[in-house]
Amino acid sequence: MEIQVFNSMDYEEFVDKFGNVIEKCPLVAAAVWTNRPFTSLAALEKMFGDFIDLLPPSGKEGILRCHPDLAGRDLLRGTLSSESQGEQIQAGLTNLTVAQRSQLSELNASYKNRFHFPFVICARMNDKDTIIKQLSSRIHNSPEHELNTSIAEVKKICHLRLLDILNRVPHGTKL
Amino acid sequence: MEIQVFNSMDYEEFVDKFGNVIEKCPLVAAAVWTNRPFTSLAALEKMFGDFIDLLPPSGKEGILRCHPDLAGRDLLRGTLSSESQGEQIQAGLTNLTVAQRSQLSELNASYKNRFHFPFVICARMNDKDTIIKQLSSRIHNSPEHELNTSIAEVKKICHLRLLDILNRVPHGTKL
Repeated sequence: MEIQVFNSMDYEEFVDKFGNVIEKCPLVAAAVWTNRPFTSLAALEKMFGDFIDLLPPSGKEGILRCHPDLAGRDLLRGTLSSESQGEQIQAGLTNLTVAQRSQLSELNASYKNRFHFPFVICARMNDKDTIIKQLSSRIHNSPEHELNTSIAEVKKICHLRLLDILNRVPHGTKL
Repeated sequence: MEIQVFNSMDYEEFVDKFGNVIEKCPLVAAAVWTNRPFTSLAALEKMFGDFIDLLPPSGKEGILRCHPDLAGRDLLRGTLSSESQGEQIQAGLTNLTVAQRSQLSELNASYKNRFHFPFVICARMNDKDTIIKQLSSRIHNSPEHELNTSIAEVKKICHLRLLDILNRVPHGTKL
């Protein structure tokens, strides 16, 4: 699908298509639509990133807080967004050992207790082992550093979800 | 329910409770949580408004674009948020004459064509007649004026939804 197709969309069609490129934050896609026409996928992606960068720290934290825990309650309850579910399955988070599940649960809780937002990582660029390793490491970051790191991960997730929408990456491909 | 109850909530509980105070924008509640503790309902409400005021114009437009049309496709399909559904029913928008439905549909389309966001009004402070009258009038505003007017309506909706959550207004009361 070519970028021109998206330039002809009204805002309702655009938000239907791109509303979850930033997890549970259709506001961002709805704001980005203002800046059409988009000259390229890269230009479109940059607008998502630029909008997030302009938010105050509380807004960046707000975006993170709209993300589910990895291997958390939403995965267990089946209430993840379809994008998140696919990403968590692909990273092997539905196939954890009892010990791994327990370790991840404890790390998630400690992380949230420290930073007041959930651990966010681009699951499709990782697997369950590197996710646990990254979480174990990033929990020691300063709050400011970790906020920046997490927002960079949001942008990686956005990048892959945009590629999916433009059909540049077959669904389920390991990157 | 007293404001202290909300100060003790973790962000997940808070977003579950307040995530739709701004229609389909849980990001705002998730950002506001950063500023706890809240000293009063008025202080909490002001934080929602302040966050919106700090957004660039595209972000304010984005918030409006997350709102459904009044008596539009979501009402017909039954896909409104429960809050919006209650508000639209209360304003009599499920009880339009054929002529009123047709008029509202045409006005909504003209309005969106002019402003590139949907007509937003605090339905519970109006009824179907004043809604049609306001829409007929506001469509002649300048884009800048109309953006400001619409965001003021978002804040009125937020005010009433906050009151509902704090159980200060019995559900269904006409204000």
